[in-house]
Amino acid sequence: MTYCVGIRLNAGLVFLSDSRTNAGLDAISTFRKMMVYEQPGERFMVLLSAGNLSISQSVREILQVEKLPNGDDEPITIWNAKSMFDATRVLGSAVRRVYEQDGPALKAAGIDFNCSMIFGGQIGDEAMRLFLVYSAGNFIEATRETCFFQVGESKYGKPILDRVLTPDTPLDEAAKCALVSMDSTLKSNLSVGLPLDLLVYEAGTLKSERIAVIDDKNPYFKMIRDTWGERLREVFEGIDDPQWNGGDAAHPLLTTSERFEPMRKITHLGERIV
Amino acid sequence: MTYCVGIRLNAGLVFLSDSRTNAGLDAISTFRKMMVYEQPGERFMVLLSAGNLSISQSVREILQVEKLPNGDDEPITIWNAKSMFDATRVLGSAVRRVYEQDGPALKAAGIDFNCSMIFGGQIGDEAMRLFLVYSAGNFIEATRETCFFQVGESKYGKPILDRVLTPDTPLDEAAKCALVSMDSTLKSNLSVGLPLDLLVYEAGTLKSERIAVIDDKNPYFKMIRDTWGERLREVFEGIDDPQWNGGDAAHPLLTTSERFEPMRKITHLGERIV
Repeated sequence: MTYCVGIRLNAGLVFLSDSRTNAGLDAISTFRKMMVYEQPGERFMVLLSAGNLSISQSVREILQVEKLPNGDDEPITIWNAKSMFDATRVLGSAVRRVYEQDGPALKAAGIDFNCSMIFGGQIGDEAMRLFLVYSAGNFIEATRETCFFQVGESKYGKPILDRVLTPDTPLDEAAKCALVSMDSTLKSNLSVGLPLDLLVYEAGTLKSERIAVIDDKNPYFKMIRDTWGERLREVFEGIDDPQWNGGDAAHPLLTTSERFEPMRKITHLGERIV
Repeated sequence: MTYCVGIRLNAGLVFLSDSRTNAGLDAISTFRKMMVYEQPGERFMVLLSAGNLSISQSVREILQVEKLPNGDDEPITIWNAKSMFDATRVLGSAVRRVYEQDGPALKAAGIDFNCSMIFGGQIGDEAMRLFLVYSAGNFIEATRETCFFQVGESKYGKPILDRVLTPDTPLDEAAKCALVSMDSTLKSNLSVGLPLDLLVYEAGTLKSERIAVIDDKNPYFKMIRDTWGERLREVFEGIDDPQWNGGDAAHPLLTTSERFEPMRKITHLGERIV
């Protein structure tokens, strides 16, 4: 399995990926899932991939040479695309090429053509953009309302992203949020594992110097792992336990609802007590 | 969808269920998923169900009259079973009976026979027990090491359970934990909804008075919903942002790892920079 998250903020982009793959619980390996495509000063793009590893590796390989027909003009590649939208179309085309090559044999073997990718970056003067690319090569784009995408084992780590992220979140705070989200995922799902690749891109720079490979010795991530769980428990303990119909409690746990009837019990006499 | 959680502690049992069902996003309904089977002073059992509603409703109906052959002795029912293990076998048998009745037609319609249930309680002098029953009628039992089961949309709400619950957790604290877990699930998944049914059972009592139907006006759950998200954000803000290789930070975010090589970048020249 995999967990990757990509975030688009006003201040820039944040990408985080784990590196565990598994083919059954007894075949665990480490494969990095982040790839940076950079033409310094001209374009900067990051790809995060989840799904079948043979598919995503093939897509990454093909992406470097994939050409999209462009009428009488030069075919579009990720290196000459004038917009992130076009670059993402090239990625979609690479996915479709792998599907043509491997799809029928995978289907015959009963294996889904399963891959999903986060692709984001900036080209020239265009604004930063972030896309989620599906197995069919189609894609959607992040907006102000939905400023992050996750692929892979996304559910454990979604609540903190939902609660914290807005387009105005500062870059390093968003990186922290992604790491907390990853921590929750690591804790609940064995199929997601270290090392992590973290990349923070500042709007308009067309390059990134802030790239980290995070292993189990990284002081910051260790601090997150220790602190977050502990503080969460402290917050949890700081909230009152329920007082059953507690008359003087600030927030009594009422046992009845105005709108819904009490739960039914079934007794050994077959009777239902309302 | 559904989210239900059952917890077995030294002090007793906690059950919590939502009540939303959906057949497509445009067919949302409210169905309660908790059922109490009680023979006061003799046995007390609670069933939480997830999966296909037609299956789980049929199982609940049949469970009341299901009889398990018992050699020359009286057949075993949930009302005369001497142990929770036997009562759960009766439940498994009810699941299999529904499978016999409906399985082939569901399969012909391309619908999975999908149901999972949490069943727990206490019979006579036996210790409390908690089971997770699968679609095939087989089941597993909670232990000291794994003291809770979830069915339905379980992932969003699992991290807090993982972090807080142990067999020594007091009953009302566990109820609070279940409600926080439910809150995270409600926030991230529209297919889980109010009202909630909460039941807290104290070991050895063979009855429960602590049953609550929680709707959106319940003061305690409202407090949880408001407080938890807010405190979570406070804790989040209280953790330092990453300092990139920050020399004097208490916990610098190192950009390199001892064990793993830096991420590769691909440039427009096809070159890979390590």
